[in-house]
Amino acid sequence: MRQKTFLVPTLRDVPSDADVISHQLMLRAGMIRQTAAGVYTYLPLAKRVIAKVESIVREELEAVGAQELTLPSLHPAELWQETGRWDKMGDELIRLQDRHGRDFALGPTHEEVITSIIRDAIGSYKKLPLNVFQIQTKFRDERRPRFGLLRGREFIMKDAYSFHDTEESLDETYQAMYKAYERIFTRVGLTFRAVIADSGAMGGKDTFEFMALAEVGEDTIAYSDSSSYAANLEMATSVRVTTRSEETSQPLSSAKVNAAASIQEAAQQLEWPLSRTVQVLAVKIDEELALLLLRADHELNEIKSLHELHAKSLTVLGEHEIKEQFKVEAGQLTALGNTSLKIYADYALEGQSGFLMNSSTADECAIQVDLNRDLTIESYVDLRLVQEGDPSPDGEGTIQFARGIEIGQVFKLGTFYSDSMGASFLDQNGRANPFKMGCYGIGVSRTVAAIIEQHHDDNGIVWPIAVAPFQLHLLTLNSKNEEQATLSEQVYSSLKKDGWDVLYDDRPERAGVKFKDADLIGIPLRVSVGKRADEGFLELKVRSTGESIDVHVDDLAETLQSKLQELSN
Amino acid sequence: MRQKTFLVPTLRDVPSDADVISHQLMLRAGMIRQTAAGVYTYLPLAKRVIAKVESIVREELEAVGAQELTLPSLHPAELWQETGRWDKMGDELIRLQDRHGRDFALGPTHEEVITSIIRDAIGSYKKLPLNVFQIQTKFRDERRPRFGLLRGREFIMKDAYSFHDTEESLDETYQAMYKAYERIFTRVGLTFRAVIADSGAMGGKDTFEFMALAEVGEDTIAYSDSSSYAANLEMATSVRVTTRSEETSQPLSSAKVNAAASIQEAAQQLEWPLSRTVQVLAVKIDEELALLLLRADHELNEIKSLHELHAKSLTVLGEHEIKEQFKVEAGQLTALGNTSLKIYADYALEGQSGFLMNSSTADECAIQVDLNRDLTIESYVDLRLVQEGDPSPDGEGTIQFARGIEIGQVFKLGTFYSDSMGASFLDQNGRANPFKMGCYGIGVSRTVAAIIEQHHDDNGIVWPIAVAPFQLHLLTLNSKNEEQATLSEQVYSSLKKDGWDVLYDDRPERAGVKFKDADLIGIPLRVSVGKRADEGFLELKVRSTGESIDVHVDDLAETLQSKLQELSN
Repeated sequence: MRQKTFLVPTLRDVPSDADVISHQLMLRAGMIRQTAAGVYTYLPLAKRVIAKVESIVREELEAVGAQELTLPSLHPAELWQETGRWDKMGDELIRLQDRHGRDFALGPTHEEVITSIIRDAIGSYKKLPLNVFQIQTKFRDERRPRFGLLRGREFIMKDAYSFHDTEESLDETYQAMYKAYERIFTRVGLTFRAVIADSGAMGGKDTFEFMALAEVGEDTIAYSDSSSYAANLEMATSVRVTTRSEETSQPLSSAKVNAAASIQEAAQQLEWPLSRTVQVLAVKIDEELALLLLRADHELNEIKSLHELHAKSLTVLGEHEIKEQFKVEAGQLTALGNTSLKIYADYALEGQSGFLMNSSTADECAIQVDLNRDLTIESYVDLRLVQEGDPSPDGEGTIQFARGIEIGQVFKLGTFYSDSMGASFLDQNGRANPFKMGCYGIGVSRTVAAIIEQHHDDNGIVWPIAVAPFQLHLLTLNSKNEEQATLSEQVYSSLKKDGWDVLYDDRPERAGVKFKDADLIGIPLRVSVGKRADEGFLELKVRSTGESIDVHVDDLAETLQSKLQELSN
Repeated sequence: MRQKTFLVPTLRDVPSDADVISHQLMLRAGMIRQTAAGVYTYLPLAKRVIAKVESIVREELEAVGAQELTLPSLHPAELWQETGRWDKMGDELIRLQDRHGRDFALGPTHEEVITSIIRDAIGSYKKLPLNVFQIQTKFRDERRPRFGLLRGREFIMKDAYSFHDTEESLDETYQAMYKAYERIFTRVGLTFRAVIADSGAMGGKDTFEFMALAEVGEDTIAYSDSSSYAANLEMATSVRVTTRSEETSQPLSSAKVNAAASIQEAAQQLEWPLSRTVQVLAVKIDEELALLLLRADHELNEIKSLHELHAKSLTVLGEHEIKEQFKVEAGQLTALGNTSLKIYADYALEGQSGFLMNSSTADECAIQVDLNRDLTIESYVDLRLVQEGDPSPDGEGTIQFARGIEIGQVFKLGTFYSDSMGASFLDQNGRANPFKMGCYGIGVSRTVAAIIEQHHDDNGIVWPIAVAPFQLHLLTLNSKNEEQATLSEQVYSSLKKDGWDVLYDDRPERAGVKFKDADLIGIPLRVSVGKRADEGFLELKVRSTGESIDVHVDDLAETLQSKLQELSN
C-alpha cells in the first residue's frame, strides 16, 4: 500500500481530550476519529488490525466447533420483555421506535434474539450441543463513555452462545471456550489473567473474566504471585484460619476515649493496633437487620458477602438509619450486649481475643474483647476485601493486586433465558427440558486498545506481528533522489511479489517526518532506503528491539524471513 | 462441517408469508429467520455465502485501490443537518435519542459521516484521489419491507466514497469502480445490466445502476437486443426522427363524436388509429401552465420530461384542475386555438400530419391535424416512455424490456456534500476547492437473494460455485450401515485434508430426507455413500446439470478436481 494516498492522518500533538495512552496513540497514529462521544470511525490502519484480531478469533472458535452467524441489531421490544430485561436494562439500552410506533432496542447483547431463534429451530437433544458466534457492532449507552475504544457506546464484540441438554455438555463447551480464549489472547500478544468474576443477577453460575493487565484498567484483580489463582477484587476469597490465637485471653475491660467519631479514631487515641480492633457495621440482609464485624483495618466486600450470606440483597445502614434503629451515633455502634440481632463476623476474627471495640457507654471503649467469650456470633463468614500480602486461597503464594481491562468473559447462564422464554428441547425420553446455556464474549475493539496499552513506548505503538496492520514499513528517505526512488520501487514490487504485507512511505516528506510517523504507527519491521542506495544497501530496523542492521538488497528477502521468524515466536 | 449439529433448520413446506422464490428458499433451506418485519438473522449457511460475496467485493475493490474502513452506525443529527438531509429523509431515517436527549440517526448511508472525516483529515491535493469503502449493516425504515432480503429494514451494504481534486480524477475512479462492479457481479454468477439511472435531487450527475435481471425485480429496464445500451425505463431515451412523413398533408377538418370521455375513446368511435391521434396533457412546469402533446398510444415519462424540459418540478393537472383552468372536461382538452400557453410536443409527433385531436367544440374532433401548420409548438422534446420494439437510442438493435433487482450503483456526487459541509482542500496554487465526490454502493444481502432468484430449480437453490456455502455435500445414505459409515468418515477426512469445503450429512435420517435437503440447500457437488460402499463406489452428482456418475473412492479426488474446474469456468 502506497502511503501517499493511504488514509493515515497522523497527528504531531497529543490530543487534549485523550487521557489514556491507547486513545492518544490511536488518534495520533491516524487509526481512529471520534464521530460522537464514545462513537468512533475505524480508519484503514485500525480496520486492518481489527480484521487480524477477528480472523484469529474466528479461527480459534471454529477450531472448537463454533458456527458463525449474524443476528440483527434491531431487536423488537417484545423479546426483551419476555425476560424482563426491557425494564431492567435502564438507560444503557438504546431504544427507538419505528415509523409505526413499535418499540425496538439496539442490541448490546443477544441472549434474547438467539434464544428466540433456537426455541423455534431446535426441538431435539439430537441437534445438541450447539455453539454459535458472531462478530458484530454492539450498542450501549454508557453514562460516561471514555478512554477511546476502552469504553465506547458503539463497539465491536464477538459474542457466542451455546445450548446443551446436560450440565456436563455445557461444562465441556465452557472449558473448550475458556481454552480457546487463552489461545486467542496469547496469539494477539496480550498479557492477561482469567479471573473469577461475579455472575451477577442474571441467574448464572460459573464465570471467568479475561483481563488484560494494564494500569488504566478499571478493575482491580487479586492474583497469586505463584499460582494461576486470580479473581476480581470483589470475588477474591480469604483463607479461613481456624487456629485460636496463642496468647491467653485477658479479662474484658474498658478505656476512656475522648469523643471519637469512629472506632478507628478511638484506636488511634488509645494507641491500640487497628488489626486488634473490631469495626461494627449495621446491615440489612434481605430486609433483616443484622450486624457485621470486621477488623478495623479491613474493608467490607459487599458483593462477596452477598454470595457468602446467600442473600438476595445486602444494604449497609447509613448514619441516619443507625441513629433511628440503635439510638446511637454511627461511630459508637457496638455488638456487646446485643441479644436480638444476628452477628456475622469475618474469618479474620474467628477465635480471636484481645480486641478493642465500642461499648454501650458513650465515652468508653471495651478492650480485651474475646469474640467467643463476649459475643454470640451467628457464624464466621468471608466478608472482607482481600489485601496485598494475604495468602492466596489456593494455598500457593501470596496475593498481589493488578489493574486489568476486561477483554473477554465466559459465563454459564444455566436456564435463565430458556426458562423465561420457554425454549425447550425433547430429551431421549421425549420429555421437554429447558436448554442449558452458556455465553461467551470478547470485546474486539477493546482488545485492540488493550494491545496498545501493553505494547508501546515513548515514540508510539509497537505492534505484535500477529496483529500489526502491516508486517513491514518501507521508507524512501529522500523521494527526490533518483537512486533511492528506483531502489525503493524495485524493493516494493519484489516484497509484494513475495507476499509481504507492506506499507510503502513514498511521500515527498523529509526523512525525519517519515521516521517519526513510522515509530508512531509501529509496524514491526522497517526497511529504509537512504544514502547507501547507490551501493544497494538498506537499513533494516526492528521496532520492538530497536535493533538496526544494514542489509544488501540481494540479502533482504532472506534476512526479513529470519526476522519474521524471530518475531513470530 | 458435520450436519448433525450444524444449524440448518430446513423446512418442508413453503412458508405462507414468503411471496418470492429467494425468500421462500432461504427460509426453507435454513439460511435466514425473521426477527421483525424486514429484520433477519443470517444463519450459518447464509453467513458463509455472505462471507464469500464480501471477499469477492473486497478483492475487486482493493484491486482498484479502494481502502477499507468502518464508519459508525450512530450518526449525530448535527451532521445530517449540515446537508439538510435530517429533514429531507423523512420516515425512512431511523432516529433515536441518547440518555442525554441528543438526536442520532442510524446510518442508512454515510456521505455525511465520511465527508466530516475527510474535511478534517485531508487538506491538500497531494493526498488525492482517495477511495474508501466499508461493508456494514445499514438501517432504513422502509414503509413496506418485503420479499425477504430484497427489501429489508436492516441489511448489509458495501458503500464506497471517493474524493478528488479534478473532474478527470473523479471520472477515472468512477470508471474503475464501474469495471470492478462488472467483475464482482460476473464473479458471483449474476446476469445483470448496468443501466442509466436517475441522479435524483442530490445534485449528482452521471449514475449507473447495476440490475440483476429477475422477474421479481421492482424496476423495469429498457435494453437494446443487440448492444450494451440499457436504462431504467424512466431514463430510456427515444430516437429523434426529424424526417417529415411521406403523405401530403390533408386540409384540417372535423368529425362528430358521441360524448367521448377521452381522445382514445373518440379514436375508437371514428376508427382512427391511436398512432395517428394526439393526446393533450395540461401540466405545470415550475408553476407555469403549459400543454404537452403525445401520441395517444404513448405514455408520458415524467422523470425524463423533467430533465428534458430542464425543470425543477413537473405536475400533470387532474380533472378538477383542468376544469378550473380551461373550463372543459379533461377528455376534451385541445391545443388547437391556443394562443397563450407554451406547447411541447413529443419527438414522435415532429413534422407529422393527418392526426386526430380534440377540438374546442364539445361533440366534434379535429381530423387531419398538421402539427406544423395548425399548432404553434414551442419545441419538440423527448417526453414519452419508450416501448418494446422502439429503435435503441444508440442506433443498434431494438428496445426490449426486462425486470431487474438493483444490486449496485455508481454515482458522481459532484460537490453537493463538500459544498454544504464546507469540505475543501488546497490545490496546487494554494486555493481552497470543494472535494469532488463519487459514491458507490452494493447491496450485499440483496445480491445473495438476487443470486437465488437467478439460480434455482423446482427442488431448491443451485449455487454458483464461487459463492456456494460449501463446495461439496457428502451424504451417508444409511448411517446405520457400518460400511457406509466407515467409508463416509474416511472420505470426509481425506476431503478435508485436501482443502475441500465440505458439509457432511452424518444425520441419522432416511436417504430421501437427505436428498431433499441436499437439493434444497443446493451445494454444487454431491457425493453420496450408498449401497455400493462395499465395493468402494460412490455417486457423484452435479447439482446444476443433474449429471450423475459412479466413482471409485480411489478416483474421487481427481474426478472432483476436474468437476470443480468445469464449474469454475
